[in-house]
Amino acid sequence: MSPKITTELLKQLRQVMKNPKYVQEPVQAYIVPSGDAHQSEYIAPCDCRRAFISGFDGSAGTAIVTEQQAAMWTDGRYFLQAAHQMDSNWTLMKMGLKDTPTQEDWLVSVLPEGSKVGVDPFIIPADQWKRMSKVLRSAGHDLVPVKENLINTIWTDCPQRPCKPLITLDLSYTGVSWRDKIVALRSKMAERKVMWFVVTALDEVAWLFNLRGSDVEYNPVFFAYAVIGMNTIRLFIDGDRMMDPAVREHLQLNSTLEPEFKIQVMPYGSILSELQAVGAGLSPKEKVWLSDKASYALTEAIPKAYRYLTPYTPICIAKAVKNAAETEGMRRAHIKDAVALCELFNWLEKEVPKGTVTEIIAADKAEEFRSQQKDFVELSFATISSTGPNGAIIHYKPVPETNRTLSVNEIYLLDSGAQYKDGTTDVTRTMHFGTPSAYEKECFTYVLKGHIAVSAAIFPNGTKGHLLDSFARSALWDCGLDYLHGTGHGVGSFLNVHEGPCGISYKTFADEPLEAGMIVSDEPGYYEDGSFGIRIENVVLVIPAETKYNFKNRGSLTFEPLTLVPIQTKMIDVNLLTEKECNWVNEYHQKCREVVGAELERQGRHEALRWLLRETEPLSRVQ
Amino acid sequence: MSPKITTELLKQLRQVMKNPKYVQEPVQAYIVPSGDAHQSEYIAPCDCRRAFISGFDGSAGTAIVTEQQAAMWTDGRYFLQAAHQMDSNWTLMKMGLKDTPTQEDWLVSVLPEGSKVGVDPFIIPADQWKRMSKVLRSAGHDLVPVKENLINTIWTDCPQRPCKPLITLDLSYTGVSWRDKIVALRSKMAERKVMWFVVTALDEVAWLFNLRGSDVEYNPVFFAYAVIGMNTIRLFIDGDRMMDPAVREHLQLNSTLEPEFKIQVMPYGSILSELQAVGAGLSPKEKVWLSDKASYALTEAIPKAYRYLTPYTPICIAKAVKNAAETEGMRRAHIKDAVALCELFNWLEKEVPKGTVTEIIAADKAEEFRSQQKDFVELSFATISSTGPNGAIIHYKPVPETNRTLSVNEIYLLDSGAQYKDGTTDVTRTMHFGTPSAYEKECFTYVLKGHIAVSAAIFPNGTKGHLLDSFARSALWDCGLDYLHGTGHGVGSFLNVHEGPCGISYKTFADEPLEAGMIVSDEPGYYEDGSFGIRIENVVLVIPAETKYNFKNRGSLTFEPLTLVPIQTKMIDVNLLTEKECNWVNEYHQKCREVVGAELERQGRHEALRWLLRETEPLSRVQ
Repeated sequence: MSPKITTELLKQLRQVMKNPKYVQEPVQAYIVPSGDAHQSEYIAPCDCRRAFISGFDGSAGTAIVTEQQAAMWTDGRYFLQAAHQMDSNWTLMKMGLKDTPTQEDWLVSVLPEGSKVGVDPFIIPADQWKRMSKVLRSAGHDLVPVKENLINTIWTDCPQRPCKPLITLDLSYTGVSWRDKIVALRSKMAERKVMWFVVTALDEVAWLFNLRGSDVEYNPVFFAYAVIGMNTIRLFIDGDRMMDPAVREHLQLNSTLEPEFKIQVMPYGSILSELQAVGAGLSPKEKVWLSDKASYALTEAIPKAYRYLTPYTPICIAKAVKNAAETEGMRRAHIKDAVALCELFNWLEKEVPKGTVTEIIAADKAEEFRSQQKDFVELSFATISSTGPNGAIIHYKPVPETNRTLSVNEIYLLDSGAQYKDGTTDVTRTMHFGTPSAYEKECFTYVLKGHIAVSAAIFPNGTKGHLLDSFARSALWDCGLDYLHGTGHGVGSFLNVHEGPCGISYKTFADEPLEAGMIVSDEPGYYEDGSFGIRIENVVLVIPAETKYNFKNRGSLTFEPLTLVPIQTKMIDVNLLTEKECNWVNEYHQKCREVVGAELERQGRHEALRWLLRETEPLSRVQ
Repeated sequence: MSPKITTELLKQLRQVMKNPKYVQEPVQAYIVPSGDAHQSEYIAPCDCRRAFISGFDGSAGTAIVTEQQAAMWTDGRYFLQAAHQMDSNWTLMKMGLKDTPTQEDWLVSVLPEGSKVGVDPFIIPADQWKRMSKVLRSAGHDLVPVKENLINTIWTDCPQRPCKPLITLDLSYTGVSWRDKIVALRSKMAERKVMWFVVTALDEVAWLFNLRGSDVEYNPVFFAYAVIGMNTIRLFIDGDRMMDPAVREHLQLNSTLEPEFKIQVMPYGSILSELQAVGAGLSPKEKVWLSDKASYALTEAIPKAYRYLTPYTPICIAKAVKNAAETEGMRRAHIKDAVALCELFNWLEKEVPKGTVTEIIAADKAEEFRSQQKDFVELSFATISSTGPNGAIIHYKPVPETNRTLSVNEIYLLDSGAQYKDGTTDVTRTMHFGTPSAYEKECFTYVLKGHIAVSAAIFPNGTKGHLLDSFARSALWDCGLDYLHGTGHGVGSFLNVHEGPCGISYKTFADEPLEAGMIVSDEPGYYEDGSFGIRIENVVLVIPAETKYNFKNRGSLTFEPLTLVPIQTKMIDVNLLTEKECNWVNEYHQKCREVVGAELERQGRHEALRWLLRETEPLSRVQ
């Protein structure tokens, strides 16, 4: 990788920072955050403004350019990559290190008195604006919204905002019609005495209208906003995709509906003015509900006294609890995904010893097998295909410079998943195609014990996921080991592979309680820098648990694995498992055999079936 | 219990609420919180103002009196008691129930427009003032500080503020001299660039100066404040106790010390004016460090720009990590405490079958045995001596109206502890003096499994205690059971039995990480309303753990039980224990035998020794 030369670009940016065409008054600093106007985790090429100005294209980072300096804040995952991709115009600010200043403190230390700091008000979330603005103001500076994005003014070959065709999902996939979702949303609004709800997150718009898109890689979403009133529905979306007869039929745009279900389609770019009109027309006590992570621009459109902000929206919470149709879809998707992985691992087992399979080839092969499955749409995230030391890089993605050949002497870690029309998958398996060392098996077994401890946990209704995080670590802790990431995240139903409001992490204290129907990942790991990485990840469904007693009539919950891919028994040190854990593995493998075996049979994939049967032979403990 | 008649008192209070002698303008509501000026958990009789005005004397509750109404907010523990103790002038506000308004919301709903709400600024913590004031202001009212406490103006027979003699602790108890503590504190102040530190919590003053008192029952503290500058030490304390030659010697009041260690003794009541003088004399960038729970009065004495507020003070954090002398003292105290309890349980075993032992008699007997031990000072909290259904009342304290007789048919739960000059104890044992049912044993064994899971846990340095809470519940959760309290709290060294900043609870996300030398309780339980209560509590010391590996060189921690009292094996269903758990019990009992056995022998308590030996016979699992 050679760094991007940014001297000329920075010069241009500094010019527009003073250009009255774009700024009322010159700004002495300009902030370029990572995100898009919807605070998406994955963004479209046209929104990669920070990568454009700096060259650094990791998933997290904020650039700030002043008249003299240019600085980039990013976290430990990206220190090396950012240093490689940026030229000497840039100073790397290593977040998490003791001596690294916050963006606000750095600004205060470098800016001349009474400076203006500009930012695109559509890109910065309202909560972040508030924090930053407060610090700057107390130091005599001003954070100011710059209406026109200054990067866009100098990005001459900026790609177009994607505007791809939509997919309509019928009841067999969604279980609930968009009309019924609107009814349920309005009832939540009535409960909170709120008159309007503004849908800003892309997956929330997609979920609400039972539509999917492909504007953003890996996430089946499309650029849109919605504003739901008690009697009106406004959908802000561009392009001729609303001309598609299937979409018009789905949204009943041509029908004579009751007025409160009539969808008004408006241009994507008109959201701000429409919302300002809503804001201007509010009577006292008429509140407008927004996520506290919505953009500053949209939040400001509603006068402060009328705002009702929550960390999780009612759609986010409803979307997390999957109904029967969604759960069945997720089950089907995971069976197909398991078929693809059985094929892949059977293939790898034969090919790896030849020394011809690289990480990239393996990742491509995984995609090939998945794409053979019914209703396959795309991958759900960039495949982490990593062998040996690359496995210890938690967010690794193979590129030609790092691409390593799989061998019978190294551990191989594959974290991959797909979008199917009936569900989203995300699975990690760690395999050895030769003979693992006793130490590798020992570490693998601790990770497996943690995985089982979460998967088999029984806990009361109302329990938040973060209370389960330590279960995943206990076996590792006992031996002085640990892993430096959370244990699980919510998973969408043919939607984003990472979604709120639930998860399993020592960090997420703002998570909502787990409920039957929620779907999360269970993915403890262990990573040894320079040597290997181990992770065992299933997607699991929260289900009611039968218990002997029922304290305060609260009821209990547990997990059912949706992922049904064998866990390599060759990597397990059986003597480190308890009887209960051993039974868990055997029962899990029995289910893989029955469910995935039947599908392999049905699809006529006999070689992969034989592989599955061999890999799911019951373990037995030496007593 | 008959309710207190408060008609006349409320009339008087409403008069002084309008009396220009006490209020600049009439207040339409007056708030009477539970606490004292130091935000203490336990308070002196002169500070029981809320109990005086209402009759309700539970440990938590806030009274608000308006011109027309009188309302009392308290939590589920006290609904019954408050209802019994208050007359019909009062409305009980049941906190935690869905329809109960907050104090602020209630005030807004009942007050006439533009009202003033008064409160004693010394009693209300600054963070609470801020929250309440904001809500009231946004509704057009004002929260105003009323300098003279209005309850005191009508409480004619209010007891005197206690002013009891002080105890000086030498190095053999404290390990560190007060001079060295001041040096360490000033170095923390220098790190944070702070010029002054205000000590407001009573246990922090006591710890800093290596002094103890008896102004408050159960807590060996005395009424005082301190203000530490980089070159000055001011101690605000009343009474002739500073004339005591031992105290003068201890504080070196008569010596010619370096000026920065010279203690200026000032009247307790002069803290506000002295602090205002400090506040008025600050140069730019001179900050004053206060707890964010300090009173509104003292916080306001420092102009906002000069305040440095933290949830935990440097003293709170330093105090939590016990040094070698304190740890040894705690060990000694726990051995003596175990001797007393062996005597007690041996005595109960003989006496209970006669039907003559009540909960109060048992509690008194426990105190009697403790008081025979060296350096005994007082109890560390009100003994919870509860049998049968009373055991299910988590914060039970036997009184004549509820006093139940112990029998061979009911479970007995004793949660008790003492202050010794060398340490503080807090231990719960649950015993059966007849034959427990299979169900009682089953529940007891789940609680025991939880107790062991925490006590034997190994976890990395830097782990916060709340991450261990689920370990204590896992065995109960598996069977659909749980308990509705936290698992552990910090314990002082001859100081408060409850102290911050660490603990083990699903609720305490603001806790500081556990460190070697910290001391906490480990006390899971199970409570069946109307039937029985089970709790097994040890005080445990955080110690470094030896582990097979050492990830990122972080090091690991575990716990060592300081409490050494047998856990009744009769109550254990051995077949529910794993081998590891069974070994833990046997090793624990072996240690009780060796350590406490030797002390019983030394004290010539042969009958109690025989009881100990019998109660610590090893368990064996049926394979």
